[in-house]
Amino acid sequence: MLPILLPTPQEENTAYKTQVSRNANIAKLEAGYLFPEIARRRAEHSQKYPDAQVISLGTGNTTEPIPEVITSAMAKKAHALSTLEGYSGYGAEQGEKLLRASIASTFYDNLGIVEDEIFVSDGAKCDISRLQVVFGSNVTMAVQDPSYPAYVDLSVIMGQTGQYQKDVEKFRNIEYMRCTPENDIIFFCSPNNPTGSAATREQLTQLVQFAKENGSIIVYDSAYAMYMSDDNPRSIFEIPGAKEIAIETSSFSKYAGFTGVRLGWTVVPKQLLFSDGFPVAKDFNRIVCTCFNGASNISQAGGLACLAPTGLKAMREVIGYYKKNAEIIVETFESLGFKVYGGKNAPFVWVHFPGRSSWDVFSEILEKTHVVTMPGSGFGPGGEGFVRVSAFGHRKNVLEACERFKQLYNI
Amino acid sequence: MLPILLPTPQEENTAYKTQVSRNANIAKLEAGYLFPEIARRRAEHSQKYPDAQVISLGTGNTTEPIPEVITSAMAKKAHALSTLEGYSGYGAEQGEKLLRASIASTFYDNLGIVEDEIFVSDGAKCDISRLQVVFGSNVTMAVQDPSYPAYVDLSVIMGQTGQYQKDVEKFRNIEYMRCTPENDIIFFCSPNNPTGSAATREQLTQLVQFAKENGSIIVYDSAYAMYMSDDNPRSIFEIPGAKEIAIETSSFSKYAGFTGVRLGWTVVPKQLLFSDGFPVAKDFNRIVCTCFNGASNISQAGGLACLAPTGLKAMREVIGYYKKNAEIIVETFESLGFKVYGGKNAPFVWVHFPGRSSWDVFSEILEKTHVVTMPGSGFGPGGEGFVRVSAFGHRKNVLEACERFKQLYNI
Repeated sequence: MLPILLPTPQEENTAYKTQVSRNANIAKLEAGYLFPEIARRRAEHSQKYPDAQVISLGTGNTTEPIPEVITSAMAKKAHALSTLEGYSGYGAEQGEKLLRASIASTFYDNLGIVEDEIFVSDGAKCDISRLQVVFGSNVTMAVQDPSYPAYVDLSVIMGQTGQYQKDVEKFRNIEYMRCTPENDIIFFCSPNNPTGSAATREQLTQLVQFAKENGSIIVYDSAYAMYMSDDNPRSIFEIPGAKEIAIETSSFSKYAGFTGVRLGWTVVPKQLLFSDGFPVAKDFNRIVCTCFNGASNISQAGGLACLAPTGLKAMREVIGYYKKNAEIIVETFESLGFKVYGGKNAPFVWVHFPGRSSWDVFSEILEKTHVVTMPGSGFGPGGEGFVRVSAFGHRKNVLEACERFKQLYNI
Repeated sequence: MLPILLPTPQEENTAYKTQVSRNANIAKLEAGYLFPEIARRRAEHSQKYPDAQVISLGTGNTTEPIPEVITSAMAKKAHALSTLEGYSGYGAEQGEKLLRASIASTFYDNLGIVEDEIFVSDGAKCDISRLQVVFGSNVTMAVQDPSYPAYVDLSVIMGQTGQYQKDVEKFRNIEYMRCTPENDIIFFCSPNNPTGSAATREQLTQLVQFAKENGSIIVYDSAYAMYMSDDNPRSIFEIPGAKEIAIETSSFSKYAGFTGVRLGWTVVPKQLLFSDGFPVAKDFNRIVCTCFNGASNISQAGGLACLAPTGLKAMREVIGYYKKNAEIIVETFESLGFKVYGGKNAPFVWVHFPGRSSWDVFSEILEKTHVVTMPGSGFGPGGEGFVRVSAFGHRKNVLEACERFKQLYNI
């Protein structure tokens, strides 16, 4: 028998299959999730150029060590867990009382947000997925365009959307940016990821007013609020009336380098009610208790250390370091004649390449400078023609990357 | 105006409401989740008897310190995060390579389960909720009766069930125990929580055969496998053919006292396919990447220490301690003439009170002995007439609780 006739390709077809149908909502997700896709391309590049010194200014991964005052608190907690007095088992699903109180007083002082409106989590993305479980499939959503891809993907997974339309690069039944009275849930990220821009007080006042008139709920992602330089709102709850229409989610990831440690929180005000008058916080609490068992107690000890005066000072130094990086990147691209957004209120620089495809520019930069960035269109069709350059990196790598950008684009 | 005419009660009705409808699936969940409900009753009891020494043998919360060899590894990891060489940001959503390999070789050696079929998580319950997101709302499920309440609650939340039927204490469209060809997903926990019984090799062979004939997927919860005394299977993958029809989820919580540290894993074999031939592992991976950001890197360092020879030895000592507790509880109830199940293959003792309501017995025990147990019916209608007594407790508390049981029931 000729080898070419061997039944290898058929083997797959005759493999045993269960009778369980694949979830059609997940099947709608065309491509891989953006961040693993970038990781895949980076690995491919490293294989092609094994000697290249690849610099990642792509996925926004933190690079600077966690301040010692914070890691010491976590190590101390770990040690305590080996003693009878210091051991604790399951914690409250909503987080430790002290940490909830500390988050309330640090970030929402004078805004009337109290301890039991704070739900401690293992990160903002994880909480957004739990919020989507709360909302279920019978809501419609609006997102900024461009925006953090998990908002859309989670909405697709929950069955809130229609099919992906290849021609316009959008899912049916998601409103990309133009909020209309039909939208139940509005995802809003400020300072925005990927564009690095923060909404002004006036814009947020209009947003709250819009939501109120239309009966929508805003899910406000403020994970970069501590990066802000100007005096625009750090929290949606600075806007009068926001407690009746908004949820806010945030994280220690980009403040204290907790991307691997996992700690965040979500604020669900008691005043926020579904159309039947039932409090959203009660359903969120039910989902948190059923789908989650609380953030790691060691991570929570770290969070508490972050919010002590010494921890806050140390966090601000880490943030300052990345902000300086952002400044260097902004200056580089501006000196090369590019129109640049962001970088002042967030650790992301959003560079315009008019008329070009984001993925093409991404590939060009990777191929010619060995620097990983993010294609703007990966964040939604509105990001086409842009590339996001992250300020998360060691200073020497950021400086080196900027040198390479100058060699590539200095004509 | 008379004070009685003040519009106070109406205030609530006139509060601002959004136009977002409450998720009808969550509204189906009648009562609170079982465990918080027990916590509430315990708190109420403590308020009523402020001087009583309440002993909790209820929710299965671990009480013994984590062995020092394991906490040291976590403290070391925490410290390393404050150094340039030791710092790491986002880890792989699926967990660290070394840990995945170590779980595969420790628990699935010779069973043909490989590293990339292991997904590290923040706990079995959290992974079960992500599995339910993978399956979506268009599947039907079967559960053991009684069983761990999160299986049913998560199914209700995802919209897989009908309404709750008060008369029979069951949700419509969930099959309680009797598996029929209509069920897509079969949740199976062995050793079982709450009954403490482990399925035999023969029973599991029949279960796998049943699933295969009907095209069902088994979600096998083996979180208590290391507690087993007899030589029945520790993993569903010991049964030939199981890789084509089963997922297994497990956890470090009850082995190493990680209930607060948060670390577990789920095995999704590559051979497991949906009816269209699409691998379940690919969709699970997509959900893990989108809804989750990996377990805390400090917890993962602890998991790795658990699986080193010194860690394994230390874990077995912790397990042995709780098993001795179980033995004491079994002996106590048997000496009082009760029919007792479990305790030999799991840290739960399942005591029969024929003809009585579980909640009545729970209340009687709490009221008269200040010991918190769990009402069997909280785990499903089949648990009526039983009470679950957990073996998680300090030895002196277990002995004291058993003394009180003897005083109450010794006639």
